[in-house]
Formats: sequence, C-alpha cells, structure tokens
Amino acid sequence: MRIVSGMRPTGKLHLGHYLGVLKNWVELQKENECFFFVADWHALSTSYEDKLNLKNLSIELVRDWIAAGIDPQKSTIFIQSAIKEHAELYVLLNMITPLGWLERNPTYKDQLAQIKNKDIHTAGFLTYPVLQTADIVLYDAQAVPIGEDQKPHLEIAREIVRRFHHLFECEIFTEPKELLSPTPRLLGLDGRKMSKSYNNAIFLSDTPEEVWSKLRVAKTDPQRVKRTDPGNPEVCLIYDYHKAFSDEETIQKVEEGCRSAGIGCVECKKWCAASIEKVLEPMRERRESVSNEDIAIILQKGEQKAKQEAAKKMQAVNKAIFEVSCQTQ
Amino acid sequence: MRIVSGMRPTGKLHLGHYLGVLKNWVELQKENECFFFVADWHALSTSYEDKLNLKNLSIELVRDWIAAGIDPQKSTIFIQSAIKEHAELYVLLNMITPLGWLERNPTYKDQLAQIKNKDIHTAGFLTYPVLQTADIVLYDAQAVPIGEDQKPHLEIAREIVRRFHHLFECEIFTEPKELLSPTPRLLGLDGRKMSKSYNNAIFLSDTPEEVWSKLRVAKTDPQRVKRTDPGNPEVCLIYDYHKAFSDEETIQKVEEGCRSAGIGCVECKKWCAASIEKVLEPMRERRESVSNEDIAIILQKGEQKAKQEAAKKMQAVNKAIFEVSCQTQ
Ligand code: SF4
Ligand code: SF4
Repeated sequence: MRIVSGMRPTGKLHLGHYLGVLKNWVELQKENECFFFVADWHALSTSYEDKLNLKNLSIELVRDWIAAGIDPQKSTIFIQSAIKEHAELYVLLNMITPLGWLERNPTYKDQLAQIKNKDIHTAGFLTYPVLQTADIVLYDAQAVPIGEDQKPHLEIAREIVRRFHHLFECEIFTEPKELLSPTPRLLGLDGRKMSKSYNNAIFLSDTPEEVWSKLRVAKTDPQRVKRTDPGNPEVCLIYDYHKAFSDEETIQKVEEGCRSAGIGCVECKKWCAASIEKVLEPMRERRESVSNEDIAIILQKGEQKAKQEAAKKMQAVNKAIFEVSCQTQ
Repeated sequence: MRIVSGMRPTGKLHLGHYLGVLKNWVELQKENECFFFVADWHALSTSYEDKLNLKNLSIELVRDWIAAGIDPQKSTIFIQSAIKEHAELYVLLNMITPLGWLERNPTYKDQLAQIKNKDIHTAGFLTYPVLQTADIVLYDAQAVPIGEDQKPHLEIAREIVRRFHHLFECEIFTEPKELLSPTPRLLGLDGRKMSKSYNNAIFLSDTPEEVWSKLRVAKTDPQRVKRTDPGNPEVCLIYDYHKAFSDEETIQKVEEGCRSAGIGCVECKKWCAASIEKVLEPMRERRESVSNEDIAIILQKGEQKAKQEAAKKMQAVNKAIFEVSCQTQ
C-alpha cells in the first residue's frame, strides 16, 4: 500500500513523537511503500514569525527519523519545499475548493480558538488542508496515518478529490483512506503536555545521563512521601512511562512493588530509565552512523524519486485542467 | 523601468482589449523592460467550471499579442503556469497574508456581489491577490499598468511586500507602483459592455468583411430616421468609435456632417470601418507572419528568461525564510 505522511520541522523529537508517530512509521514501512516528508512549508503556517532556521531543523528532523529507524532503503524521504509540484497542485486545488469547507473545518475553528500566542488568521493557515491534500494526492497515497484531530482534514482531502474528478471529468487521484493510528498519549515529566517549551520531555537524542537527570527529578505519587509509604501507580507518571516502554514483567513488578512499598521510587525510576534506554540506545547508534553527507544523499535520492512521481501526476493534472483531456494512466 | 503585466486567456481579443490594454503595452515596451504573461492560473479562478482548453487559448492569446504589436525581441512573453516559482512564492506569501486584508478587499466584495453565474466562493478566488503579488514581485516589477478596479490589489501587493520585509528582516522585493493607464472605455456595437458573449465586439482577428458586417447593422442615433434628418453624434456609438480610431479631421467631418445631415450613416460607418482597418490591417499582416512554431519559440525564449529571473529571486526568498539569512543581491 502507498502511504504518505509528513512531519513539521519544529525542533528535536522526543519520546512523545516516537510513541505517537515514529514507532508507527517504522512499523508501516515494513509492509508498505512509504513517502515521509518534512513539512517545512506547513511549519511556516504557524511559525512564520519565529525566525526558525527551518533548513537546519529539516535536516535534524531527518536525522531523528533515521535514528528512530526510518530506513531510507525502504522509504522515500524528502523535504516538501524541494518538490515544487506541491505548490503547483495547491494553486490549482485552491481554485476549486469552496471557502466554506475550510471555514467550517472543526479543527480549524478549534485551533483559532486555542492558539492565542501566534497570529494564525492568515490565508496560509486557512488553506492549510488544501496544501495537505496536494501533499497526499500527488503521490496517490492510499492511506494516511493520522490522529483523531486530523480526521476533518482527510475528509476535506477526499471531498477535494471528488470535486476535481467531477469538475474535470477525470479520475486522476486516489481517495486517501485514514489509518487511525493507536497513539498512546504520553505526558511530559511534569504532567503537562510533552513539549520542548515546557522543558519536560526526553529527547530521542538525549544521552543516558540526560535521561536520568530528567527522570530523577520527576514527580511521583504525591501521597508516597516516605520510602515505606505504599504508592498508587495509577496516579504516577513514571508508571505511564513503564507502560509505554517496559516489558510486561517489569510493569507487573512496578505495580506490585509500588502498592506494597516493596520498591522505592528511585529504584522504580532506574528500571524506567533502563527500559527507555532499550529504545534510545539503538537510536544513538544509528544517529552516530549517519553523517551529514549521508543525509544529503538520502534526501537527494528521496527527492529524485518524489519529484519523478509528482511530475508524472502533474502532467496528468495539467492535461485534465488545461487541455480538457483525461489520461489516467 | 521593469514592468510586469498579465492577461487571462479567456478568448480572442477585441477592440476593447486593444484600447484598454494592448495599445498601452505596445507603448510601454518602447521605453521599458516588460514582462507580459498569460495568466492561465488566474483564468481558472473564475472559469474552473467552464471546461475551457486554456492551453490553446493561451497560445491564441499570445498570437493576438504579437499581432497587436507586442515585440518578442523587446518584451519577455511567457505563460504563468510554466513558471512554477509563481506557485512557490504564492504558498509562502499566503503564510504571512492576513485573511482580513483579502476579505476586506473592496474589489473582492464587489465581485462576490456581481458575479452570480459562477461559484467563486473559493479559496483560489479569495487568495487571488496573493498569487497576483507573487506574479509581480517575483520579477521586481517597479510598475504595473492597472485599471482603477485593480488599485486595491496593488495596495495588497505592497502591504504583503512590507510585511515580508518586516517579518524576515530582509528587503528582498521591489514595491510595485501603479501605472494608472488612461483606458477609454469602448462599448460594444449594441451599447452594452463589449463582450464575446454579447456578440457585439469587433475582434482583432476579424476580416474586413466581418468588421463591416458588424458596423453595418450597428444602431446609430435613433432620432435620425431618414437620411435628411440631422443627427446627434453624442448619442451615437459610431461616433465613439470614430473618436477612438479616426483622425481629428475625420472626427470633425463626422461631427459636422451628422449634425447638418450632410452625410448619411452608411457613409459615416464606411469612414469608421476605414479607420478601424488602419489598426487591424497591420495586425493581420503580423498575425500571418507568425507561425505556431514561431509562437512556441517565443514562449520557450520568454520562459527561459522568466524562469531565470524567478529562480534567482526564489533563492533569495528561501534563504530569507528558511535560513534566516538576508542576501539582497
Ligand atoms: S514506585 Fe514507581 S510507580 Fe510507584 S510512585 Fe514511585 S515512581 Fe511511581
Ligand atoms: S452620421 Fe455617423 S455619427 Fe451621425 S448618427 Fe449616423 S452613424 Fe452616427
């Protein structure tokens, strides 16, 4: 199955990104033909005021992906802005996309209400689902792994595809299906949303010392004041991390040891660190084995492949629109 | 001075287009470096439902231009959709363009109110001034010849330029000035707006016979029933055509001859046809001298030049946005 998915280059990735997205991508690439792209144009829609060096962030994002196990031999990796066809298709799809579809999009309305520290009342933010549609249908994605909040966007993508087919009487695109991925939500070590800006996240690129220094000071069950107090793992973040990263046996041991005061919180955190290390250690190795030149070559190869697919698709799109001629093959 | 201007490929050009736009372009190219482009993407914003063969229409438009005296040796002629950088810059400028600027645009509101037979409540139609901004600033246009109704669009273009310079701390673009062209409005031969769909227009590609057959049946002063009735040229369309195309002497003769019943309407129309022929005859010659291959070569050359300029500009734009690095030269 052809799968397309993108990620914004907004900074180094943490365990939340891994559990929520990357772990799933690594699984998906085993059985599917995946296109993974760095959504640098999309990043601008919310961070155009932030003076981020998106070029460097994009390269670091790819490094994180490779470290996490995205295999450039299996998957096509590229940067969105390198493939101008995304912009070309976006122009064309904007022409046929009713404003109402975008304005009524519940995710759009939620974000306008929630995001207060940035001015996102822009043309780019409103039309962001159209660019996303272009990203997906340019490669005939059959499925797109998304979270619940992205469902309205994918529905818009399908509606745009149907409208295109209807208006130009040419079935050029594949209607993308959603692949609702089970995304266990992992909170940051202070109980808030995991985020770089809250300084509560363990990054994929952290050293063992950094991981431990963060776990060490993390809050546990507040009722468990002394070592001899029994605790309740259900109210403890460390237990959540165990459930996300430890094996069944360890989880069991933590559950019982906590409730019976059989283990101390420091011991429990050490086990947790060890479990996280099982994920991060191989990432560190892969990270070290990939040089800047390797990344440049990976992107070059990926962009060549993506460009080829995108150019072929745009040829058919332009024929349908500008020559009223349908060639679906 | 660098000048950029575009025209939508919506069908063959008539005398109204010549007087309103092309005559001015021909003048401008004498002293300025002009970029004239076929706005095929813009055409979609209002005609995406019309199944027009915009590819052919674009080529025919260029043929009309050449016939009218646009000189490919002097001016750069290209088709918008051939230069993907217009789309790329449009994506980027959308990201920084406040929706309010577009929604409050008086021309936009007018058009929404006026155009009832087409569904233009689309993302493309709303953001059309952003694409227009990209078209202009990509080539550092110092001036843009526009009509009164396009003033708000050019103001938006300047505002987007200023916002870009401010946000990315980089003075990359030239603020385009308006060149309000004196556009004598010529009505169609039935007194309505000149338009292909009203069948009341003389086309630049009409034969002398076609011109005469249209003039012959055109209404004149309705009070002048008999040849001996004196007429009032001020209420006669033919007099408007004389004022647009005849020399001073002829205009004088018509004025006096009409008021004194010294001339008949047929005679007056013959003079009018002769004056129009003075404009159309050289166009016919130029039209015949340019083959399809010539047009292909003209576009190839124009697109090469435009592409080179656009790519250079986009390099600076992308450096400013994605690398937070300002290179204005
Ligand atoms: S023992 Fe583990 S699960 Fe229980 S409170 Fe301490 S850190 Fe949390
Ligand atoms: S003489 Fe000429 S200007 Fe007068 S009414 Fe006839 S056509 Fe019109």
